[in-house]
Amino acid sequence: MELPSKLVEAAVDQIASLPGIGRRTALRLALHLLRRDPERVEAFARSLTAMREGVRGCSRCHNLCEGGLCAICEDPARDVNQVCVVEDVRDLLAIESLRTYRGTYHVLGGVISPMDGVGPADLYVQDLVDRMRSAPTDSEVIFALPTTMEGETTAFYLYRKLGDLALRITAISRGVAVGDDLQHADEATLAQSLKTRVPYHG
Amino acid sequence: MELPSKLVEAAVDQIASLPGIGRRTALRLALHLLRRDPERVEAFARSLTAMREGVRGCSRCHNLCEGGLCAICEDPARDVNQVCVVEDVRDLLAIESLRTYRGTYHVLGGVISPMDGVGPADLYVQDLVDRMRSAPTDSEVIFALPTTMEGETTAFYLYRKLGDLALRITAISRGVAVGDDLQHADEATLAQSLKTRVPYHG
Repeated sequence: MELPSKLVEAAVDQIASLPGIGRRTALRLALHLLRRDPERVEAFARSLTAMREGVRGCSRCHNLCEGGLCAICEDPARDVNQVCVVEDVRDLLAIESLRTYRGTYHVLGGVISPMDGVGPADLYVQDLVDRMRSAPTDSEVIFALPTTMEGETTAFYLYRKLGDLALRITAISRGVAVGDDLQHADEATLAQSLKTRVPYHG
Repeated sequence: MELPSKLVEAAVDQIASLPGIGRRTALRLALHLLRRDPERVEAFARSLTAMREGVRGCSRCHNLCEGGLCAICEDPARDVNQVCVVEDVRDLLAIESLRTYRGTYHVLGGVISPMDGVGPADLYVQDLVDRMRSAPTDSEVIFALPTTMEGETTAFYLYRKLGDLALRITAISRGVAVGDDLQHADEATLAQSLKTRVPYHG
């Protein structure tokens, strides 16, 4: 579809470069922005550049922050010797929204995926190893990685890397979701759920 | 979900203010932008403000252009006495992509929708009437409006407004889509298709 203005064309190209946004949606959004006051579009654009310029990874856990350590790492009430390893910031936010976890995090920035050309060197893996090397021996590393081939590969890789350190390494449990019928759970989940059954305390 | 940075929060709020984009998607897009080079985010933002500042409606038909008349209105090969009335620029682009229509357009900028508080005064309706008043008597106005209640209301309103001018007023035909089975067409479409049947020329 040829657009009647080079400026619209450029904006649509930019919007469509975002993951999951096709050209049709991009055009719809561009036309929407054209109906807004210029000041609002200016504010929109400024918020994106301000974010990109002002936000950096926490120097310890790679959570988002605006310089130095993130709010979680800086919180003296959080247990620095309990480190939950997650793929990205959205997983950290999901766990944080539970308001039950009082440890800290380590954001890998992805998972190992040879298919996508992502190796351990592309992630904050060595960083985690270095960090745990100086941790007390009763420290715990919790793998909270996706249940995909890539997630499992990453967990196994980290396990091997961390293996010689005297740490407690755990992983979040897999199983039938709370509120789900057994008959609707997929086979792999049900099998895992049975295999990793836990003592029942009534 | 509380975000770990006010700057990310602000950007997510802005992205989520776009129609059809929820906060979850907005966060995904914000995190994607954070992984890009600052120069690319700068270029992204600049393309939006440049579009908003540089693009205006064609002074005759309200198609997008960068000042004065749009490329279609300026094209001497297009028939200015054939005016296709559309709801918005995307409909114009859809017709243009056929490469068969050689007339011009009039973009209303919406359809009459009392439910959404959109009346004729919010659209380029009077503009169309003024424009057609000075057109030759053999001019044609083609309604290419949506097949919704609002589209039909708008067409009827325009018909009444243009009625005293000696114009040919037509509307694009409604019916079973090309390539569709009759059994899969909805009842209203099939009924319309039968009612507005046309001579068959073999």
